[in-house]
This record gives sequence, structure tokens and C-alpha cells, in this order.
Amino acid sequence: MDIAELKSAHPEHWRMACAIRTLTLDAVAAANSGHSGMPIGFADVATVLFTKHLKFDPKAPHWPDRDRFILSAGHGSMLLYSLLHLTGYEDMTLEQIKNFRQMGAITAGHPEYGHATGIETTTGPLGQGIANAVGFAFAEEIQRARWGKKVIDHKTWVAAGDGCLMEGVSQEAIALAGHHKLSNLVVLWDNNDITIDGPVSLSDSTDQRARFAASGWEVLSCDGHDPEDIDRALTAAAKSDRPVFVDCKTHIALGTSAQDTSKGHGALTDETLISDARALYDWPYGPFEIPSDVMDAWRAAGARGAEAKAAWDARFAALSGRKQDDFNREYAGDIPKKLAAVTRALKKQISENAPKVATRKASEMALEVMNPVLPETIGGSADLTGSNNTKTPDLGVHSPDNREGRFLHYGIREHGMAAAMNGMALHGGAKPYSGTFMCFTDYARPSMRLSALMNVPVTYVMTHDSIGLGEDGPTHQPVEHLAMLRATPNMNVFRPADAVETAEAWEIALSSKGTPSVLALSRQGLPTVRLDHKTKNLTEAGAYVLADATGKRQAILMATGSEVSIALAAREILEAEGIGTRVVSMPCWELFEAQDEQYRRRVLPGGPVRVAIEAGVGFGWDKWLFGERGKRDKGGFVGMEGFGASAPADELYAHFGITAEATVAKVKELIGLS
Amino acid sequence: MDIAELKSAHPEHWRMACAIRTLTLDAVAAANSGHSGMPIGFADVATVLFTKHLKFDPKAPHWPDRDRFILSAGHGSMLLYSLLHLTGYEDMTLEQIKNFRQMGAITAGHPEYGHATGIETTTGPLGQGIANAVGFAFAEEIQRARWGKKVIDHKTWVAAGDGCLMEGVSQEAIALAGHHKLSNLVVLWDNNDITIDGPVSLSDSTDQRARFAASGWEVLSCDGHDPEDIDRALTAAAKSDRPVFVDCKTHIALGTSAQDTSKGHGALTDETLISDARALYDWPYGPFEIPSDVMDAWRAAGARGAEAKAAWDARFAALSGRKQDDFNREYAGDIPKKLAAVTRALKKQISENAPKVATRKASEMALEVMNPVLPETIGGSADLTGSNNTKTPDLGVHSPDNREGRFLHYGIREHGMAAAMNGMALHGGAKPYSGTFMCFTDYARPSMRLSALMNVPVTYVMTHDSIGLGEDGPTHQPVEHLAMLRATPNMNVFRPADAVETAEAWEIALSSKGTPSVLALSRQGLPTVRLDHKTKNLTEAGAYVLADATGKRQAILMATGSEVSIALAAREILEAEGIGTRVVSMPCWELFEAQDEQYRRRVLPGGPVRVAIEAGVGFGWDKWLFGERGKRDKGGFVGMEGFGASAPADELYAHFGITAEATVAKVKELIGLS
Repeated sequence: MDIAELKSAHPEHWRMACAIRTLTLDAVAAANSGHSGMPIGFADVATVLFTKHLKFDPKAPHWPDRDRFILSAGHGSMLLYSLLHLTGYEDMTLEQIKNFRQMGAITAGHPEYGHATGIETTTGPLGQGIANAVGFAFAEEIQRARWGKKVIDHKTWVAAGDGCLMEGVSQEAIALAGHHKLSNLVVLWDNNDITIDGPVSLSDSTDQRARFAASGWEVLSCDGHDPEDIDRALTAAAKSDRPVFVDCKTHIALGTSAQDTSKGHGALTDETLISDARALYDWPYGPFEIPSDVMDAWRAAGARGAEAKAAWDARFAALSGRKQDDFNREYAGDIPKKLAAVTRALKKQISENAPKVATRKASEMALEVMNPVLPETIGGSADLTGSNNTKTPDLGVHSPDNREGRFLHYGIREHGMAAAMNGMALHGGAKPYSGTFMCFTDYARPSMRLSALMNVPVTYVMTHDSIGLGEDGPTHQPVEHLAMLRATPNMNVFRPADAVETAEAWEIALSSKGTPSVLALSRQGLPTVRLDHKTKNLTEAGAYVLADATGKRQAILMATGSEVSIALAAREILEAEGIGTRVVSMPCWELFEAQDEQYRRRVLPGGPVRVAIEAGVGFGWDKWLFGERGKRDKGGFVGMEGFGASAPADELYAHFGITAEATVAKVKELIGLS
Repeated sequence: MDIAELKSAHPEHWRMACAIRTLTLDAVAAANSGHSGMPIGFADVATVLFTKHLKFDPKAPHWPDRDRFILSAGHGSMLLYSLLHLTGYEDMTLEQIKNFRQMGAITAGHPEYGHATGIETTTGPLGQGIANAVGFAFAEEIQRARWGKKVIDHKTWVAAGDGCLMEGVSQEAIALAGHHKLSNLVVLWDNNDITIDGPVSLSDSTDQRARFAASGWEVLSCDGHDPEDIDRALTAAAKSDRPVFVDCKTHIALGTSAQDTSKGHGALTDETLISDARALYDWPYGPFEIPSDVMDAWRAAGARGAEAKAAWDARFAALSGRKQDDFNREYAGDIPKKLAAVTRALKKQISENAPKVATRKASEMALEVMNPVLPETIGGSADLTGSNNTKTPDLGVHSPDNREGRFLHYGIREHGMAAAMNGMALHGGAKPYSGTFMCFTDYARPSMRLSALMNVPVTYVMTHDSIGLGEDGPTHQPVEHLAMLRATPNMNVFRPADAVETAEAWEIALSSKGTPSVLALSRQGLPTVRLDHKTKNLTEAGAYVLADATGKRQAILMATGSEVSIALAAREILEAEGIGTRVVSMPCWELFEAQDEQYRRRVLPGGPVRVAIEAGVGFGWDKWLFGERGKRDKGGFVGMEGFGASAPADELYAHFGITAEATVAKVKELIGLS
């Protein structure tokens, strides 16, 4: 790679790529922070991709059949912002780029989904983008099979660096993609031999090409600065019937005095470095100035897609009205009217038959009636299908031989599963849900946080949600996980008490447009506590009075999930002793907090002593035990103080004192009767 | 593999292996739960390993130079329990095996570190064991370089299944091990083609041998049921100068009617299945009965190591008394007297010079004086060395060419890093600490939970602990992470306010014997708030009065870390207006909770209004805002309600209202002055 050669051999390409490079230098200098090296080093690959291969239309950024470009190396955000501005995305103005990393700008330090059109997913936490991309590609395969190539047939292009490839989640992602022969997925490796600490050789000597080949990927390579060689590789990549890994040999911070160094990874703000680079780029223009020939060339590249978009519009218009309505509804994330009907019918049937079932089984009952009316759901499990109960007969198992299959055997890959679900939801037209043991939310955690941060309404089916899991022991028994999830902003954590609440939780989760849901479900059978059928979804209020005190109300018992029936049993004893006791079921704290103060006070009035019962740590419960700020209610907690143990579930509940008797004793202690 | 052939060709081996198989069948039947297939399928490999290769002495289970055997496929716990019983570990009695998975037994569903000797680490969450093993191997390399082969020269043998290899953390682990050419690490793959959901082909088609080779491992294979072939492979593995991956082709649940099926993975309790298997095994004995010839053979295998142990004792006795003392101190996990001295000296100097430094920098100042007096520390960073400030000049960078190096460039592998640290601490003679951004505790989370569950005192240096991180934005700004960590049992979460508290936190973390520590450290510079030098470690109390009210105490401000100086500024304003205000610094909630109630009430007396200030979500703070249960103190919180944003740090603090002014306003509101 010789810069002089590149300039003379491909003058127009060089100038277009240098527009990205100089916008990056100028924006980072203005912000006095950011990452200059990646956008500068990857500008040539990106220029060839956006000018010759990527199917997109800046005037129709939400076009369902567009190619997706995912900047997994999210720290290189100026690469994406530059491309969006240059190709003509209207919201990505020069003003926004001048305000890179400033308060209120859509040009955050890392690309934030929802800030600007053309940002397909939030990246920055390394490995997430490449793992999201597998979800995008799954959604594309499934929808292509369902709607046909005329409606859905697009690629997912990923730009990934060494950081993304070192993160373990990348292995889960590439193994899934390779196994499923995802044919429209292309990963472009920004192979620049540099990480923050120094040369990659400090911490890694993996043969990445051999690694991807071992997972069934087609492997190509190119000189990441020679536009002809890049074009050759991308052309070949586009033809593959398997996922493709393209090793793009690049030089970080190309043409600056920090080229090929870890310094080049970060913010290059030195004036001399910048002016020297501009000179070498043959860029005599002012900061943020794009000469008209270059801007015209970029806008022409951005206009390439209009024709394809128009052709797609025509093909889509040729679909039956019914198909168009379904497609549009699913892409709008709206639920069909039928969902309310099947939910009510199921609730009625449960209240009448009062089955004693585990809520993980109740979840399956709900999915059995809901999946058939929601063709956009995509279910799965991380190798616990029979335990999570997430597979219903109508889904079909997805495989290269059954692209319409809507159930994914993710393997033992909780993190890759969660990241893929984010990708499916972001792709559009899909409502992903999948399961593992609640304790293994730990593995999925980095992607679960991004579900919340990105406002993507995926559903996590987390079964075996307490010591009720029994003999598998403390490694598999969540105790702190409810608190962890409740502490996370924008996440609805449901812990339903019975099959009715489980159906209600599913109805809310599937209707959600901007908040992910976690369903914490029991392994053990639970009695039906909602015996009076109500068409109204009581779980929507987050908490409600399940059984009230007869006579003077002296105690309020609050519980979730499997402990609600314990609360009811304790109430029986207390009422028998003349202690008026209310039982409040609290399936979703977040929704209860969203109610007005009047409702919350009606459910949890001041005065009576309060005892919370939950088979997890008490962390966070004080908020409800002590009432509205400044109130003086006495509160107590019946639950776990540490990790669990390995034994049959009922013995564990007795051992850890999570019983009706312990609850009664706590109430009496607080009232002063003991 | 033909069972009849195996029996006739290797009758003694067959009977020894069948002792494992039948103990497994009997224990699982008695518990009516567990995993039968793995121990039965892997019994032949384990028998060859324990009878011919593993260096161990059941009479000296803590012998520092023993080989470590790590059952990464922890669900196969009966394999380990059987081996420990058969080879003569005294605590692993037949009674314990009969009580498999029962309350109080040391034979938990998954191997729990600390329950029994011979359990080197807690496994069950898949991928952890193989990743711990890399830490064991690092510790062995480092100590071999320091103490010489006569004192430290042993192997780490891992039994891993497909689940372990599918988890992403395994990739981080094998890439690290391959890059560092860890020469005493051998991974035995239980290649049985089965997972819980069915055949591996449902979810994976990775060429595992090619994958390990791509990471620089030596790759061998063997028939996992032919003792001669297994012996050949293990003999070759033991000679390698690189980590070795042995593909052991096995049949899950060998010889049962569930062989080679996912049913075989779980609990085989069917009486006919069991009696048929016993017949095929030629095992006419009663449940839990081990014929004397088989027991004698196993005990002889267990006695093999006594000679090597005695020889090691002699070599160790030949070391100088000084060396023996150092070695014994480090293996006991005791700290040298010097630590207190250097800590006091540093604290004094800080209080005198009152530097304004980020606590991540203060952490480096502490490590600069502490590392030299603690040769057992092993530092590192997940590619953020210059940001985490975890590298001190004396450590030296670890590499195949510098085995004494005590600083590890982990690469972008937070999860593998955390798991490796667990392994180093469990190995003994090492005090690992390492860093990443606080937000990426999400990636390390599964291993951090195991640090707490296993009581291993590793230290997590989590810098950039709030929106104070600034422009990198919400993906990199922790808001819920303090709550998540505080909700986790047995974890000390330190958020020091200045350089003095940081030194005190480090002194406590390095002195810890059974609790992991997290140091949440600021990116931004913080003023020294501890201006009066105290030799006493005030952080040990978890919380203390930093500045008291002059005159009538009307308000108590509670804060941690970077918000303590905000609390002091608010106190200035309030005091100036005649509102007596106490400031309580709370660097570690867990240690404060451990104080007696009298001390806690002295620090947080009832009466005054309370306002907590922390640049994270308020989840959990109610516990302190509303005082001891039943008290009526009014409380308010100044902090975050959702995710952060991308902008300069000071603008973010103002934007989210985490300021002295907002604190003053909150106090006045609660007092009723506004």
C-alpha cells in the first residue's frame, strides 16, 4: 500500500475517502475527544461499500428491504456519521457533525440507535454489533422465506475490529451464523493490528481466518486501501451462499503521524498532525468543508438506491391488500386485535380450571395461543427448550433446510442469543423471545442492557427463577437477579404468580413497543390464585389487591411469583387469628411505579405493617416496605440473605425460612404481638 | 468402540471405570435427579487420567504442587465425587455420595468449591471451568518462573463438554492460553455429540479441532473408551510446550438404553435401565457397593502420589527459611506486615499534599507502593491499561518470553479475565486484580458472581464509574451497576471519595480472605476530602462521619465516590444558611452493614432529614434514607433516573441535576423551607 499510488490510481475514490478522513479529524478536534484512527483507516473499504455495494436510500431510511450496515467497532462512530452526512441522510447535518459528542447532538460518542436514521443498532460495547448482525440475518432469512425474494432480499454488512473478534460473544455469533449458513451476512474485518494497549500481538495471535473457516464461513481477503481489490472481494462476498468473512488489511490512522500505532486509535487533536495529514490527503479546504465535486460524487452514491427502492415499492404494491396490511402491521410493531381475544379466553379457562402449573408451563400455554396469531414471533432457547417451554408446535425449527422455521435452537449461547434477539427486533417485522435459566441472565447481561438502552421490545423468558430450582444448587439459583434487573432502567421485570398473571404478562410483553420484558418463571408448580376471571389485565397496573383484609386492616403482605401463594396461606392464618390482612400481588414493579400516586396509595395505604415475601435478596424492597417517602409504616422482609443450596425445593424453602409461618411470625413481631 | 472388546481387552480398567458408572447411577437414582450421562461416558478417560497421569495425593489435598483437575462440565459432578471417594479423599465418604444433592451434603448438584477437598473450583455455569483453568495455568507459569521447577511444576487438566465450548468465554480463554503458550494446560473434550436439546448438530457444526489449532493449541485425539489410546494421547499431551486440546470421542451414558441420546444427559432413574446397565457392566453388586478388588485398585491409584509428595516436601525443606516463610504466607493468603506501613505512609502523604486526582489514578498510587511488598499480586487490564491505571513499573509484562511478568494484557476479554482471576486465586499463592470500565462488569458478570459464591478474594478495578466518563456516552456510563453489585451476596463494593479512601479500600481488598472486592473508580479528578491524616482505616467501617454539623443537626448528606465532594459543597451552602449539616461518606455499604447497630445509629442518627447523592440509580438507597426499620426519617435522593448521555462530564452533572445546588434544594424541600 503506497499512498501516492492510491491517489494517482484512484483520484476520485481517494478524494471521497478523504472526505471521511477529514470530517473525522475535524469533528474529533472540535470535540477534543473521540476515535480518529478507525474511520481514517477504514474509509476506503467503507467508500467502496457505500458507493458500489450497499443497497440503501437516504430518502427512505426505514425501507424494510434495505441492506443493513452495522458498525460493530462503534468507537469509530465518525465513520458512520460521515457516511450518513455525505450520502444525504437529512437528519445528519453538518451542524450535527460539528457538535460531535456534545449535549443534545445526535452524534454521540458511540452510535446510539434512535438518535439518527441510518444507525441500525447501538454499538460501542465490543462484540455486540457482530452478534446483533446475526439476528438481522436470521430475521432476513425467515422473512425472505415467508414473503419471497421480491419483498425481502437484502444483506447485512458488518464492520468489525479486533476488539469485536476478541469478545467471546463473537464466537457464539459466528458459530450460529456458520451453522445456519446465513447467506446474506458479510463481516468486514478492519484488520489493523492495533488495540488500545498496543499491537494486537500483545494479547492475541489467533488466526482469525482459520477461526471463521472452522465455523463454516467463506473467508476472503483484500488490501483494505485498494478500491479495486476491495471491490473484487465485496463482489465475491455478495455471491456466497454462506456467511462471509472478509479480512481487510488496513492501516489505522492512515496517512497521519500516528498511523499504525495505538495512539492512532484515540483522539488525534494535535494541530500539526492534522495539518500534515490534510496536506498528505491533498485537502486544502477548511475544517468541515467538503468540495462540491466530492459532495456531488457522494450524493450520487446516495442516490443509487432510489431506483431499487422504487422497484421494491412497485413489487410491494402488487401484493394483496391483506398481505400488505400484515406486513405493515408487523413492521409497525403493532399487535393484531386477536391477541386480546385469545388472552381473555385463556385467562377465563385458567380461572375456571384453576390448574396447578409452573409458570414456565403457563408461559407455554400462553405461547400456544399467542404464537398462532402473531406470525412475527421468533422463539428460541439456549439449549433448555424442554425446561424453558418456549417451543410451540406451530413454530417449526429453523435450519438451512427450513428457513420458515420460527424456533431457534441457539445452543449454549445465552449472550449470542440475547444479542441476536436485539438484531431481529431492530431489523423490523419480528418479535423475538427466548429462554434460559434466570441465573444465566448473567451471561446475557451485556445485550440485555442494550435492549433497554435501545428501547427494543424483546422478551426474555427466564425460568427456574429462584431456589425453587432445587437440587442443581446455588450456581443455578438466582437470588440477586431480580434486583439487578429491576435496577436497570427501561426494563419490565415480570414475576407472575400463576397462569393468569403469566398470560397477562405475555400480553403486555408482546404489546410493548419500546421496553424489553423479562418473565421470571417458576420451575415448580404453583396454584392458580386468580380464581375470579377478570377481562381486565390486572398485571398492567404492576401491583394490585389480590385478597383484602376482612375487618380492620392490620397487615399488608406483598409478594411476587411463587411467593404469592405463600402470602395467601399466611393471610389465612392471620385472619383466623383476627389479624386483618391484605395480600398484594406485585408482578411488575416498574408498571406499579408508573401508576399515579393515588393508585399506589390505594393498593399500599399507610398504617398497616408491611411484609414482603420473595425468594430472592431483599435489596430494593425497602422502597415498598416503608411506603411513600416520609411515611412511617413498619416493614419486614421474608426472603434470601445469601446464596442458595443444593436440595429439594421444598426443603430449601423451609431451610431458608420462606414460609407462611415465618411470614406470620414477622407480621406479629411488627405488630408487637410477639 | 465395542463394549465386549473393551471388557475383555482391559478387564481391570473396565471394572474401575464401571465403579464410577454405577456410583453415578446409584447416586442419581437415590437423589432422583442429576446428570448420569457425562460421568458414565467420560469414566474411561477419567480413569486413565487418575490412575496414570494426574499428580495428586488424597492425603494432602492442598499440596501446592499437585496437578489440578477441573470438571468444567460441572453437571457431571458424580464423576468428580466418585473419583474423590474411590481414590481416598477422606471427606468424600460413601455416606456423602448416598446423600448426593441433599441438604447439608458436600455432594451438591454441581461441584461447589469449599464443600470438599479435591474440588478445585465451582463449576456448572458452562465455560467457567475451562476459563478458570487458564488462570490456574497462568499462576503455575508465573510461580514456576519465580520458585523454580523443584517447587512449582504441575499441570491443569480440564474436562470440558460441548456446552463449555459453545459459551463465548471459552474463546476468550483458549485465545489467551494459546497466545501465552501455557505449556501445562490440557483440555480433554468430552466429544459425545449430545446437548440437552438433542444432537449437537441442532445448534453447532464448529470444527473444534480447527478452532483450537487456530488459537495456537496442539490438537490430539483419541477413542475416549479405549484406555490404551487414551493413555497414548495423555502421554503425548503431557510433553507439549503449548496448551493441548484432546478430542476424546465418547458415548454419553455408555452401555445404557439412553446411550448417545439427550435423554442420557439427564437423570437416568428408570429401574430397568439401571439393572440392564449393571448387567452389561458385569456388576452384580448392590447399590453403592464397590467390590474390594476394584476399591483396592482405586486406592492404589490414589496412593501413587505419596512418593512425589514426599519428594516435594524434601525439596521444599531445602529452601531457605525466608523462602519457605514467604511461600507459606502467600499460600495462606496472609498479607505482609509491610502493607500496613506503606498504606499509612501513603495516606499521610496524600492528606498533607491534598492532590486533586481521579481515584483511578489514586488506585495506581496505591498499587505503586503495595505491589512491591506483595510479590503475589498479578495485575492486568482488558485492553484499557492506560485508563484503568493497573500497571505498575515493578510488575513486568507477562509473555512466553517473560514468565515472571506479573501484568497481563488480557485483550478485550473481560469475561475471560474475570474467570482467569478466579482460577489464579483458587490456585493459591496469587492475589489477582484487574481492570476494565465499570460498565463492562456486564461482560465479566458470570465470573464475578462465582468469585462471590466461591469466596475468592479477587479485586475488580472498575474505572470510569459514572456519567463522569463523559463523551463516550450511555453505552459506557454505568448507572445501575453499583446496585447490581451491591445486590450480590458476599461482594465488597468500594466507591472511594478520594485518594485516601482509595488507599484504604486497596488495603482492605488485598487483606480479604473470603470476599471479592470491586473498586468503583472515577475517570475525573477529585479533590482530597480526607485532609486530617488518621492511621486508622476509616473505610473499614464502611461509612463514617466526614464532616459534622455545626450547631443543631438538621440534615445528613450521604454520598459515595465522586459525589462526596458535592455533598461537602452542599454542606458549605447549608451551614452558611444556618442549616446544620452532617456529611457521611459511605465507601462500602457491605462493611457498614456489618457494623453493630449502635455504630450505624451513631453515624446515621434518627431525626435529621437525609439526602443521598450518587451518580447512579437510586435503587437500594431507601434502606439508608429511611433509617432503621420503622423509623420515620425523611429522605431524598439526588442521582440518575435512567441512562446517561454523550457530553463533557461537567455538563452531564449539570444536565442530570447532580449538583450541590440540587442537593441544597432537596434538603430545604424535606425540611419544609421551600
